Amino acid sequence: MDFSSKLLENAVNEMSQLPGIGKRTALRLVLHLLRQPESQTVRLSHSLKQLREEINFCKNCHNISDTEICEICANPNRDEALVCVVEDIRDVMAIENTSQFQGHYHVLGGKISPMDGIGPGDLHIDTLVEKIKKGSVRELILALSSTMEGDTTNFYIFKQLEGKEVLVTTIARGIAVGDELEYADEVTLGRSILHRVPFEGSLKSS
Amino acid sequence: MDFSSKLLENAVNEMSQLPGIGKRTALRLVLHLLRQPESQTVRLSHSLKQLREEINFCKNCHNISDTEICEICANPNRDEALVCVVEDIRDVMAIENTSQFQGHYHVLGGKISPMDGIGPGDLHIDTLVEKIKKGSVRELILALSSTMEGDTTNFYIFKQLEGKEVLVTTIARGIAVGDELEYADEVTLGRSILHRVPFEGSLKSS
Repeated sequence: MDFSSKLLENAVNEMSQLPGIGKRTALRLVLHLLRQPESQTVRLSHSLKQLREEINFCKNCHNISDTEICEICANPNRDEALVCVVEDIRDVMAIENTSQFQGHYHVLGGKISPMDGIGPGDLHIDTLVEKIKKGSVRELILALSSTMEGDTTNFYIFKQLEGKEVLVTTIARGIAVGDELEYADEVTLGRSILHRVPFEGSLKSS
Repeated sequence: MDFSSKLLENAVNEMSQLPGIGKRTALRLVLHLLRQPESQTVRLSHSLKQLREEINFCKNCHNISDTEICEICANPNRDEALVCVVEDIRDVMAIENTSQFQGHYHVLGGKISPMDGIGPGDLHIDTLVEKIKKGSVRELILALSSTMEGDTTNFYIFKQLEGKEVLVTTIARGIAVGDELEYADEVTLGRSILHRVPFEGSLKSS
């Protein structure tokens, strides 16, 4: 693309570094900002810079937090002996939305993925093992996505915990509520038959 | 969405002000920035702010430019008596990419659209009329999009120029090069038959 302005070109180039945003979309977004009041761009620019510079992660669970210990970990009504292991903060938000979980989280920050150069050392696995070693965790729920990377990470964590006194569980896989059986893939349907639950007991919380 | 951090919430809210970017996408983009080196966010933030604060528009054609007169208007090899009227800078970039036009541009900054509250006074139509009044323009090419708003704007400009000594033309509409006739809509096909050109004369530049 041939820009008539170096400033415009810079902004478009930086914007198009974001995932899923190509040069054309970046140009559309930047031109939109130019048509809006200057204050909008200033607020966007400031909020991104401030987030990146001042962001904190909870010392306990590695969730994003403005305080040293996040609201969830600081809540005395939540069960700290029940820990749910997730990939990132979006999973925390998704599970929190269900209001079905009253334990703590442990945010790994990703999955083991040799293809992307992410090894166990790049994730918060060591602090998880430390936490378990202290003996304060009763149950660890693995809630990673069921991809090859997720399975690898699950297995790695499981191996690290061998011999430790902790119950390791994983979230139930099965047909989604409201889904038709005939359209389900065979792996999911197979698992949901294998891991069938007593009738009417399915809504019992752990 | 329930954010654990006010900083994160601010950034996501500002990001989701952009067109076509919802809260979920905004969260994905912002979390991506958090995983990248801090310098990337600083550069993005700075380039947007700088663009918005220091942006200049060419005094002659209203194109985005870092200088008072844009490169196109300042180029002595281009024909200033031939002016192409476009909606915004993206159209200038598109036409420049064809290398088929050696005249000047006039960027309106939009189309007349009562639905969006955009009247003739919000566009750079007065400066266009001024330019024509001076008598230095031989031909005016209307290259707005062929929507109702585009047609309205074309007609408004045409009316403003009544009695002035200037040839007003519009870009050719027809079947795109490489397109199959059977899939073309009837309006386009009809126009391309009405405005047929002599064989082999179609590549002649104006």
